Amino acid sequence: MISELSLDVLLPQYSARLSKIFTYYLNNIPSLELKQAMEHTLSNPGKYIRPLLIYATGHIFDASLDDLDLPASAVELVHTYSLIHDDLPCMDNADLRRGKPTCHRTYGEAIAVLTGDALHTLAMQILASHEASLPIDRRLQMIAALTNACGPFGMAAGQALDMTTLGNHHLSSDLLNTVYHLKTGSLISACIELGRLSSNDDDLFNQQALKRFGGCIGLAFQIQDDILDQEGTAQILGKNQGLDMQNKKITYPVLYGMQNAKDKVQSLYQEALDAINYLGSKAQLLRVLTKELLDRKK
Amino acid sequence: MISELSLDVLLPQYSARLSKIFTYYLNNIPSLELKQAMEHTLSNPGKYIRPLLIYATGHIFDASLDDLDLPASAVELVHTYSLIHDDLPCMDNADLRRGKPTCHRTYGEAIAVLTGDALHTLAMQILASHEASLPIDRRLQMIAALTNACGPFGMAAGQALDMTTLGNHHLSSDLLNTVYHLKTGSLISACIELGRLSSNDDDLFNQQALKRFGGCIGLAFQIQDDILDQEGTAQILGKNQGLDMQNKKITYPVLYGMQNAKDKVQSLYQEALDAINYLGSKAQLLRVLTKELLDRKK
Repeated sequence: MISELSLDVLLPQYSARLSKIFTYYLNNIPSLELKQAMEHTLSNPGKYIRPLLIYATGHIFDASLDDLDLPASAVELVHTYSLIHDDLPCMDNADLRRGKPTCHRTYGEAIAVLTGDALHTLAMQILASHEASLPIDRRLQMIAALTNACGPFGMAAGQALDMTTLGNHHLSSDLLNTVYHLKTGSLISACIELGRLSSNDDDLFNQQALKRFGGCIGLAFQIQDDILDQEGTAQILGKNQGLDMQNKKITYPVLYGMQNAKDKVQSLYQEALDAINYLGSKAQLLRVLTKELLDRKK
Repeated sequence: MISELSLDVLLPQYSARLSKIFTYYLNNIPSLELKQAMEHTLSNPGKYIRPLLIYATGHIFDASLDDLDLPASAVELVHTYSLIHDDLPCMDNADLRRGKPTCHRTYGEAIAVLTGDALHTLAMQILASHEASLPIDRRLQMIAALTNACGPFGMAAGQALDMTTLGNHHLSSDLLNTVYHLKTGSLISACIELGRLSSNDDDLFNQQALKRFGGCIGLAFQIQDDILDQEGTAQILGKNQGLDMQNKKITYPVLYGMQNAKDKVQSLYQEALDAINYLGSKAQLLRVLTKELLDRKK
């Protein structure tokens, strides 16, 4: 059973599904430059953590892969758009992303801004209109969940707070938690909810348990990013390393010390696993993925 | 009847409706800087041409104002996000917008990028979840129409083409038409469709007639923008003037001559009015608005 749930086997399958959807849309884009920049960015995929979370959560509730493809591709598009805009010279000014030059390094800043915008819109377009058996009320709930997670009440606000407050040496732990939740946790949490929404599950207890699970892994994920930014290498990370230090950002390891940060990651993953323990064998793929996340080196 | 349909009377009413919705969302944004930048941009409204087109089209089919508020605010948010990103130094590098310093001049480039992103997401969030009696199938159709008009198959592609092809002196008239349709026409046309979708109209003849109407005023609108960019003043326009010339862009007046451009605008508006002639007195507000657009000086 577990062997069937190996991520090494599943990731290429899921990845091929996403590529197929992306190619379908990319083939019809009327601007060659925009198409190439979108293609370049999407054909250089990351770890697909967010789509994997969606597929693994959907698996618990027997959601169909065809239905799961919609939120999985939408979230990957939103994540990719946010990376392109984050990497811009006026933001993180990063040269490297997923081991290759960033979008603006290859296509110029103007096309990079538009590429981010286009991926952002395409995500919503797919949820609204890509063919699937997904009922229309679920599609709308997905758009509501995703926009709430990535817009001015989620990721966009988190990134603004990241830039404006994380240089502040009197930063409170409450504010740090808020920023982490908004800039990273909200989209990760939304993946769990989107996976459930791909099925016909309407159980309030499940919703609450998965919310707790999503909250824990979202926060853990951002703390790990900070740890890796300090301890990793650009070669392994595939992106610039040490940017937080360079930008004098207050992060979890800076505020609490490296060991406490590592302990916190461990305890958050344990809390996450506890929250979905009651789901039994159906949640095994999500557990496998959670353990992969805990051990990640990039 | 016509006096009740005066835009001088209606614009403040519609404007107040949009402000109420914007304020409702702005009040809950967790990043002060993001909130202020969004507020600054939205509290300095333009001519509200796109929302007016939506309200005027909805009026034909007896759509409720509460339902029309959703696409009207969503389209204004999308339009505003596109202006913020267009004005960035890497794009048009504009200092002035609606008579005030552009978003990036006031809040810096990073916050301007995020403000555009946040307005973009908020538009979709409002269509998906803002309270109204609008049925869920209509909401989804609206998100499909708006994303198709403003994403990689519409506005975003048009802007990319604008940057990459309009400096080309061998530009064909076909390509110019395509760029104009994508960068301006698609969103203007979508407004007409969104107005109809706010009602329960499902008549195919209406759809086709309004599509023709939207296509004509969309193209006319962009040609007028080019004319005004050459002949207007920054003081009246409220934005930088002469940018096309400065950026050596091929525009309709450059390709066909100023008089031909002006004649084309007249004939497009006439064709637009012909297309909705059969709709009788219910379309009077849309006619009044069309005539206002024809006479616009900014």
